[in-house]
Amino acid sequence: MSTVKVSNGANISSIEVEDGVSLLEAISKIKDMHVDASCGGKGTCGKCKVKVLKGDVLIPSLSEKKFLSVKELEDDYRLSCMVPVTGNIDVLVNGINEISQILTDHKGFSGKLNPIVKSKYMNLPKPSLEDQRSDTSRVLESIPLNNPAMSLSLRQKLPSILRNAGYSITAVYSLDTLISVEPGATECLNFLIAIDIGTTTIAAYLIDMATGRILDTISGLNGQKIFGADVISRIQYSMQKADNLEILQDKIISQIADLCITLVDKNGISNSNIYSLILAGNTTMLHLFYGVDPSGIAVAPFIPGFLGSMNLPSSAFEDFPLECIIYSLPSIAGYVGADIVAGILATKMHEREELSLLIDIGTNGEIVFGNKEKLYCCSTAAGPAFEGAHISCGLGGITGAIDSAVIENDSIKYTTIGNEKAVGICGSGIIDIVAVLLKIGLVEFTGRIPNEEELDGAAVALFNKIKIDKNGPAFKITKASETGTGEDIIFTQADIREVQLAKAAISAGIYSLLNRAGRDQAEIDHVFIAGGFGSYISKRSAADIGLIPASLLDKTESVGNTAGLGAISCALSKEKFEVSKNIAVRTEYIELSSDSFFNMKYMEEMVFPEY
Amino acid sequence: MSTVKVSNGANISSIEVEDGVSLLEAISKIKDMHVDASCGGKGTCGKCKVKVLKGDVLIPSLSEKKFLSVKELEDDYRLSCMVPVTGNIDVLVNGINEISQILTDHKGFSGKLNPIVKSKYMNLPKPSLEDQRSDTSRVLESIPLNNPAMSLSLRQKLPSILRNAGYSITAVYSLDTLISVEPGATECLNFLIAIDIGTTTIAAYLIDMATGRILDTISGLNGQKIFGADVISRIQYSMQKADNLEILQDKIISQIADLCITLVDKNGISNSNIYSLILAGNTTMLHLFYGVDPSGIAVAPFIPGFLGSMNLPSSAFEDFPLECIIYSLPSIAGYVGADIVAGILATKMHEREELSLLIDIGTNGEIVFGNKEKLYCCSTAAGPAFEGAHISCGLGGITGAIDSAVIENDSIKYTTIGNEKAVGICGSGIIDIVAVLLKIGLVEFTGRIPNEEELDGAAVALFNKIKIDKNGPAFKITKASETGTGEDIIFTQADIREVQLAKAAISAGIYSLLNRAGRDQAEIDHVFIAGGFGSYISKRSAADIGLIPASLLDKTESVGNTAGLGAISCALSKEKFEVSKNIAVRTEYIELSSDSFFNMKYMEEMVFPEY
Repeated sequence: MSTVKVSNGANISSIEVEDGVSLLEAISKIKDMHVDASCGGKGTCGKCKVKVLKGDVLIPSLSEKKFLSVKELEDDYRLSCMVPVTGNIDVLVNGINEISQILTDHKGFSGKLNPIVKSKYMNLPKPSLEDQRSDTSRVLESIPLNNPAMSLSLRQKLPSILRNAGYSITAVYSLDTLISVEPGATECLNFLIAIDIGTTTIAAYLIDMATGRILDTISGLNGQKIFGADVISRIQYSMQKADNLEILQDKIISQIADLCITLVDKNGISNSNIYSLILAGNTTMLHLFYGVDPSGIAVAPFIPGFLGSMNLPSSAFEDFPLECIIYSLPSIAGYVGADIVAGILATKMHEREELSLLIDIGTNGEIVFGNKEKLYCCSTAAGPAFEGAHISCGLGGITGAIDSAVIENDSIKYTTIGNEKAVGICGSGIIDIVAVLLKIGLVEFTGRIPNEEELDGAAVALFNKIKIDKNGPAFKITKASETGTGEDIIFTQADIREVQLAKAAISAGIYSLLNRAGRDQAEIDHVFIAGGFGSYISKRSAADIGLIPASLLDKTESVGNTAGLGAISCALSKEKFEVSKNIAVRTEYIELSSDSFFNMKYMEEMVFPEY
Repeated sequence: MSTVKVSNGANISSIEVEDGVSLLEAISKIKDMHVDASCGGKGTCGKCKVKVLKGDVLIPSLSEKKFLSVKELEDDYRLSCMVPVTGNIDVLVNGINEISQILTDHKGFSGKLNPIVKSKYMNLPKPSLEDQRSDTSRVLESIPLNNPAMSLSLRQKLPSILRNAGYSITAVYSLDTLISVEPGATECLNFLIAIDIGTTTIAAYLIDMATGRILDTISGLNGQKIFGADVISRIQYSMQKADNLEILQDKIISQIADLCITLVDKNGISNSNIYSLILAGNTTMLHLFYGVDPSGIAVAPFIPGFLGSMNLPSSAFEDFPLECIIYSLPSIAGYVGADIVAGILATKMHEREELSLLIDIGTNGEIVFGNKEKLYCCSTAAGPAFEGAHISCGLGGITGAIDSAVIENDSIKYTTIGNEKAVGICGSGIIDIVAVLLKIGLVEFTGRIPNEEELDGAAVALFNKIKIDKNGPAFKITKASETGTGEDIIFTQADIREVQLAKAAISAGIYSLLNRAGRDQAEIDHVFIAGGFGSYISKRSAADIGLIPASLLDKTESVGNTAGLGAISCALSKEKFEVSKNIAVRTEYIELSSDSFFNMKYMEEMVFPEY
């Protein structure tokens, strides 16, 4: 036996282990000491570096050296999984809980790490005639679960697992479920994948539950797009034939499975160490994931099949490649989903004294207003225009999309994503173009494109340069010879009308919430613009076209994908998961279709600001 | 619309229904009024009889008359499912809660009917823009569940069920699970099957949960018998090869499935109206049912995989023909199972001020002692001899088994089951034979068969008549020419030794519990003899051979299959189910293998009473 003394810079602990076990395994057995080791100690991920402070160890092998720089080798850094304990040794690990810092960077999480899935290494007392507890009780009585459940298959395996492991096991458990019991100390191998199912985009985050770190992120376009661009068209597709709902469900499940497997493989993690998935998404996307008939959402009075948080074993879904528990966040209403609950959580507007406004512009436009006392929310059919839908040359945020525009020297200067030849205009570009046209006078506050004789000096030159007629008045943003498509990129009178409608919906939605709350926009302290799109728009232009009140410009910030971050927060904090359920039931949903104030305001807000 | 006024002899309620609906359906919609209708109103079970007191109804059809006697027709009895409401009508139903009476007959249940699975007919408020609750919330908020769960498949179907049923539905729910949602009023179609999995025999009871009635009972020999007669040999078989545990599990599950289907078909019930199963059985049988490795039970320190109560959807078991929830009662220890917990519940020894003793003689012999303050239990390897195992001509309780014996006119007179020619001796016969041989002196209190010269007058004649030598001294109970097998039925010195061992184990077990509790046998007020075997033995003979103390003879009663009755009690009363969990954890298990008092007493009790 040798003593391994471990310091993490803050605390020092030690443990007695048999010679020959790896340093990684020794450290894993110490409570509160963590070393990353996503490959499970196979020497393939290179993450389990520690600094040897004292004691003799074997020299590093070639395969270990591959992961260590010359500097690290000089400083006695080693891969702890490759170093057998051969005598007393002191090491320094870098395992201080970094959750706050990393997640605060993402404006998501801060606070105490208390993940929904925990791992606990235990050396259980061995059975005797004086201690005849069942195998199940022996494990369950050592972990803090109230009404513990476990799968039949785990129950079946438990006796042999315990006996073969000599009662030294790691128990993996969740809110109220014993998920897994594994031989030996595997506490550091506890991973979760958080997924935001957007109508357009699916984002997946790989989370190390032992440290709270986001290890990796990937995303992809929602494969259901071929069945319709927005939630209504997907629901309609699901209703057309008996099998269609299942087709939509299979599509999303297999895509999520693929994203998970990609994340797992890329990071050298074993499938069996993904114990849970957590999902956010709008109400319809979650219905389609679970295969629950969403047709009630499409027609008044817009009734969803379910809104609550769910947790199901992945075995409920045929052929899902990971054996894990799948959690989902709760939704508020048919058109205000779990993604918005996650957004509230991520922006902390439910905790703040000050009043905040959250605007999530995706395929729909959801708005939340309020503070810790009371939250109001609504949904407006605003999104598609800002995602490029229904716009002549509109596009999503792909390479070559015009994403910003200004006027310089009597012409429109634009940038494109990836600096490629322009192929169309994405949401942020659309808002910029409308803003510049408005300010120079080529679009009136009513949305009308004026005649030449109605313009003054400065505007005339630009007007003559870009004005065309193509199914009515339109502007040529760039000519065919300069585009990647070989065709003109234009912006038409009809496009301006689309933007007016979308802008009016968001803006009237904001005023409706303020009205319902009996508040004034001057009282608002924070405006959070969320959604992929929200990260790219010019706040200035958004104010210029009246999408957000100009007076709130300085209080506005883009907060990125708050749906993903809120889901991660729930995964890393049982308390926040509970809070999310509370938010879902206490946030008041305002149904705008029957709101006379909204309908009046919608007409009023159809006009742009006057310049 | 017409008014149906319903009296059950105690209360009168009325309901408005549309003309044309059946009387059965109308009555089903009234809270607390019940009509049996196991066929679901198809006119095939004949159970839904009501008496028409007032009002005009169509005359009965031929198919209805089939189920009604002349007297019933004269008295205006009708099958309520066959009578459409065609105007105002008053009827009398026989739906008074008969649970106490029927189950008290079986010494099982009395008390308030509060079944673990309930059905509730509800006319839910229809959704509107003012009431946008999800389909799930709309249902769940109308039934009293704390942390409601529901299967994914029910969630998926719920929106279309609600819409197609116009929100008039019957919800079927259990402890914390919404099991089913069905269109219309189906409250009266709620059935459960209670099953006692004995090592030798499986008994199944069909229960009408709406009334608490036991509708039918069937039983069969446990098909696992081919793999071993007792729990130890079954466990050993399960350990011999990797697949054997699964073979044992498949055997018991398919047999239970068959028993269920037989009950359901025989009683004209639809499979879909069996919402739950509840299981009792010894710890090993429950392990084999769930496919949990039981090997820890077979060797010291006798550790089971689990002891707690379980509830699992039947979908956890491949190909199970009923879609239902399967509950099982909790066990106390590896050798004191859920059947004994059920026995405690059925005999109410956990509620009594007075001290009781419960002796369950099946394949093992389990003993419980105590009162409402404290219960002690133990298990003794006593059973097989009393089930005919290890006895030369021993048999289970089958046709032709000698089941009682007395001495008349210098010869042994016996009876057989079914009055057929004798084919062997079952447990009650074994005890009677040993008792008569003891009392006449042909067996000494030490268990030895004496020589002729040691006997006095009366015994000599019988001795000379029946004494033979067959691998040592033995008695010929009946000769080959009079048996069904064409061979002598004998009882040997070795058989007597087997009975001594079994008797000593039970008896020493009783004294060990008394000793642990610091009590004396004189303080005992009730002795309950449970188990199939317990129903048939002569209490007198049991006392004569010292199986139970002679002083307790007057306090002894046979209570039949308390395992089945206890399980039924739990199904009919959520409170009793909770109590069963409490009994399982608070009953103190005494491990006799390490109990020095037991070992001493076991030696002492090896002798029979002296005559």
